[in-house]
Amino acid sequence: MATAGILIIGNEILSGKVSDTNSPYLCRELRALGVDVERILTIPDDVRVIAREVSALSEAYDVVFTSGGIGPTHDDLTMDGVALAFGRKVLRSDTIAERIERAQGKAPNESQLKMAMIPEDALLIDAGDLWFPVVVVENVYVLPGIPELLRKKFESVRERFRGVPVLLKRVFVKRRESDIAAELNALLEQYPELMLGSYPKIGEESFHVLLTLESRDAGYLQRALDALLGRLPTDSIYKVE
Amino acid sequence: MATAGILIIGNEILSGKVSDTNSPYLCRELRALGVDVERILTIPDDVRVIAREVSALSEAYDVVFTSGGIGPTHDDLTMDGVALAFGRKVLRSDTIAERIERAQGKAPNESQLKMAMIPEDALLIDAGDLWFPVVVVENVYVLPGIPELLRKKFESVRERFRGVPVLLKRVFVKRRESDIAAELNALLEQYPELMLGSYPKIGEESFHVLLTLESRDAGYLQRALDALLGRLPTDSIYKVE
Repeated sequence: MATAGILIIGNEILSGKVSDTNSPYLCRELRALGVDVERILTIPDDVRVIAREVSALSEAYDVVFTSGGIGPTHDDLTMDGVALAFGRKVLRSDTIAERIERAQGKAPNESQLKMAMIPEDALLIDAGDLWFPVVVVENVYVLPGIPELLRKKFESVRERFRGVPVLLKRVFVKRRESDIAAELNALLEQYPELMLGSYPKIGEESFHVLLTLESRDAGYLQRALDALLGRLPTDSIYKVE
Repeated sequence: MATAGILIIGNEILSGKVSDTNSPYLCRELRALGVDVERILTIPDDVRVIAREVSALSEAYDVVFTSGGIGPTHDDLTMDGVALAFGRKVLRSDTIAERIERAQGKAPNESQLKMAMIPEDALLIDAGDLWFPVVVVENVYVLPGIPELLRKKFESVRERFRGVPVLLKRVFVKRRESDIAAELNALLEQYPELMLGSYPKIGEESFHVLLTLESRDAGYLQRALDALLGRLPTDSIYKVE
């Protein structure tokens, strides 16, 4: 199973001016592909902090996705941070400079050329109709902060991460969490590999708790589900999906 | 200036089943109070990971808020993690056990008593009409994952964090980022203490870039804003707020 870490870079998230929709998107997509996201970290636009966290995440997980900080302005520091994390220089990519020129039909200005400055020996992967490619350094995929662009870029690399997906069953229960907690513990003793989540819902009339049962093994999941349904009173189940 | 770290605890976020709305809420509220959020970290329901990260955040920042993992089920491990972070025992709080009994009019069952197990010598702060108090250990405020409850609890402690708020001006610009990046750099040389953000907007007709100017000093902010408006062509400004 592949593991992933997500690094969200941007003062605008920490200061509450913008809500991060990129990590929820990446979590959903990666889950569907079978990749386990083990950490999401949001940090400021600061080269040293970016470098330190890219380095730590790159060591801890199979793949790392960064979001944000790759534009032409003073607060776009991700390329410098990623380069620093791996002790690489930042060099002008002629390929990217040429793409900018082709896209706008004139030579790039100094600020645009900043966007062509990327870590030495980075891998460039074309992203659909976008002129700026996905930049990959070792196991780190550098993605933009703008949600529309992040999605396009992720789509262009997603098949690299396809593994064994996690299967999900959802059981909606008309009891309080504290009334079924003992049964959940007993179920986990019987099915220790089951990923079992229990989420109380407030302001919902038809059920009180959503249970999620997950496994990569369809047979194991079904047996665990049957065992759970056998343990709970029939009239406590609102629905199973 | 106070600094803060936010720790979101929950497999449901990492697996993409639930979007975290608690950290955006806390970021907005803390910003309005004048607290600088420097890190948001989302981790799984794992006692050792919780303990390690609570300890690191507690050392790095003035105040830490955790969200999630304080219910009665097997995946609610935050109290254990926080206790482990500070080398404290987990003990039954008679105060909380009594509140549960009072709230439901009968003795708590074993699962409910799990919710009364909190780190030794924790501070308890009443939260409005909720029977479960805010639990505070050193500089760590333990908050629930359910958004409605988190908000009520935060409201009951928010005045503890009131400082000097950050003032914000927003300038909507009808130019591309790369056309104004040089002017932004010049502005920052003149106003090095200015917090300046530049955010391109896709699919927006009336402007291309939102600039945010921030400072805790109203006079400094106004001078920086005037300097920026002097630098940019008049017809490039869509509006200033």
